Amino acid sequence: MIPAELPKRTALTFDEIMSTTTSPDTQFRAARWQGDHAGYLELIDQTLLPTTFKIIECRTVEEVWEAIKKLRVRGAPAIGIAAAYGVCLGLQTVPADAEEDDTDFFARLKEVAEYLATSRPTAVNLFWALDRMQRKAESLRGSTSLLDLKEQLLTEAKTIESEDQAMCEAMGQAGAELMPAGGGILTHCNTGGLATAAYGTALSVIYFAHKNGKGIQVFADETRPLLQGARLTMWELQQWKIPSTLICDSMAAQVMKEGKIQAVITGADRIAANGDSANKIGTYGLAVLAKAHNIPFYIAAPSSTFDLSLASGDQIPIEERASEEITCGYGKQTAPDDVQVYNPAFDVTPAELIQAIICEHGVIDPVTTDNIAKVLGK
Amino acid sequence: MIPAELPKRTALTFDEIMSTTTSPDTQFRAARWQGDHAGYLELIDQTLLPTTFKIIECRTVEEVWEAIKKLRVRGAPAIGIAAAYGVCLGLQTVPADAEEDDTDFFARLKEVAEYLATSRPTAVNLFWALDRMQRKAESLRGSTSLLDLKEQLLTEAKTIESEDQAMCEAMGQAGAELMPAGGGILTHCNTGGLATAAYGTALSVIYFAHKNGKGIQVFADETRPLLQGARLTMWELQQWKIPSTLICDSMAAQVMKEGKIQAVITGADRIAANGDSANKIGTYGLAVLAKAHNIPFYIAAPSSTFDLSLASGDQIPIEERASEEITCGYGKQTAPDDVQVYNPAFDVTPAELIQAIICEHGVIDPVTTDNIAKVLGK
Repeated sequence: MIPAELPKRTALTFDEIMSTTTSPDTQFRAARWQGDHAGYLELIDQTLLPTTFKIIECRTVEEVWEAIKKLRVRGAPAIGIAAAYGVCLGLQTVPADAEEDDTDFFARLKEVAEYLATSRPTAVNLFWALDRMQRKAESLRGSTSLLDLKEQLLTEAKTIESEDQAMCEAMGQAGAELMPAGGGILTHCNTGGLATAAYGTALSVIYFAHKNGKGIQVFADETRPLLQGARLTMWELQQWKIPSTLICDSMAAQVMKEGKIQAVITGADRIAANGDSANKIGTYGLAVLAKAHNIPFYIAAPSSTFDLSLASGDQIPIEERASEEITCGYGKQTAPDDVQVYNPAFDVTPAELIQAIICEHGVIDPVTTDNIAKVLGK
Repeated sequence: MIPAELPKRTALTFDEIMSTTTSPDTQFRAARWQGDHAGYLELIDQTLLPTTFKIIECRTVEEVWEAIKKLRVRGAPAIGIAAAYGVCLGLQTVPADAEEDDTDFFARLKEVAEYLATSRPTAVNLFWALDRMQRKAESLRGSTSLLDLKEQLLTEAKTIESEDQAMCEAMGQAGAELMPAGGGILTHCNTGGLATAAYGTALSVIYFAHKNGKGIQVFADETRPLLQGARLTMWELQQWKIPSTLICDSMAAQVMKEGKIQAVITGADRIAANGDSANKIGTYGLAVLAKAHNIPFYIAAPSSTFDLSLASGDQIPIEERASEEITCGYGKQTAPDDVQVYNPAFDVTPAELIQAIICEHGVIDPVTTDNIAKVLGK
């Protein structure tokens, strides 16, 4: 369904990429399997973005482990997908001839899954994908050949990928309806295809609004301290040829005041039962500014983001990250030695500031505890 | 009145500076003259901050020109002061013996003033200071010796400096009264002693609130894109030993929500007759966020900042600056090639969001056209 038009296996500048991509549907893939169960995994080396587009080939589980560890692939869904394919790669070392005994196969499966789990120990999707691959193998144990097991595990990994893509597309299409025709849309951080199977969450809404002919203009916050907006979101928007403008986070209020923004949309990392939403630091401020300018503020996030065990956002802990992210972010020290720094990774936007939450099951509007439970079917 | 305790003429690390500065009154000077009319000008090389503190000696007008051009000295008042001393340096090449004819002296004065005016062609204070020095010389022409003229011009430059310091102190003391005892104060950009004769504008308020025992805590926005908050404000706060914390601009809302901020104070670049105030980009957003959190928002700026010919802030043009400030700011490219960027240098905060404006004549509260005219004596 998505043309694979991006050139592969070479390091290209952005200009070279653009000169070889012509379709407005051009879509990159954070992770893509090539071939049958004896094939290999292609990953975009995201550490080289935004200046160099390079696809790396992982032909061993060790290479996948390294890619996750070094953030060459990042974003919870994309990590899960890469890990699932990593299991397939790890099993390639086990011969799949006609021998009856599957002991070596399942020993290797356990070894590979445990190994991959150490690549990014805080990534929940990583464990979820590894569990799912192991459960699939166990469900087939004894009932089929090792060759078929390998093929079915590859199919399972592809299913994980395609389910994620379908979820992103469902969110994108549902959210696109809400986007203002001919309007300006502000987004924050990176919530795009690089972090998922394809399209992303909030960025999927933007992608489908554009694809469906809404004629939107996008403004992307650079998103300090780690600049995911500048580095990744702007890259994706360029790939998709969506008219877009980069701003510093501190410019959002001015752009709103100038009448350039008709909607704000972000992703979420965790949503409480009442709709209070934790997301990248800066999101809460954007929601307050949007309200002050009478601009609707939306969140797009899959249903797995909801944590209904939390009654409200007060119960979501705010992670603090290293001060060096702020003081020494990009190859240059930008603050005196030994300054005190406060670096919260997230903030929580109260439900009353959120016009609607878009998930793969539909649009939650208004954002209330009852409505969330209803749309999620809980 | 201010102890000159900072070590001079050597490049020091911040730790070395701190180890040699012990008084809470420790004060640096962006520009300081040493000696009589045959002396020289010392400048802090601000391009080396925040990692290295180095005082450079300017012994020729060419060195002052270069220092202004290369931003070794920056901030409107500090540039004016440096230029005034630059005139004194330029006149050192004219012999001041008993000769009667002052033609060479005034020809050189004109040459030096015109030359210095080319160092930073958009700096209004530069022209103002050069004009003032020339007017002083003209007022004395024919009535005194060339030696006395040199001495009186040095006195005029010192007067420009001391008037600026007195203005900063008046603002600081008036504003300090308004600061919340034991409270958190958020500021943006750099409005400190590095940009003025001493103390600064908004940072002078913070300085005197601290000095007067208010027990404040300061939060400083790093202030993208040029990071004046991280690089300069945090350096000054460290020099003054004021408890302070660096945050990214996008964290201001969260810090407010956590109850850590009881006042926000910034400087201004231009204030209209009704109190609408143009200042560094990000200021308007802070004012909106402050209002949403019921936190008073103050501006500190000298009376010269008011432009009563402008009825409101709508008439203040917003300068756009180069996109590279955002895309290549840290010594590393942080956005794809050829992205569209919006980089407004300023925004305008409407008067109704400003609790009070502090100037050297007192506190303007409430911020209304009538009240501004009254306090300014217009």
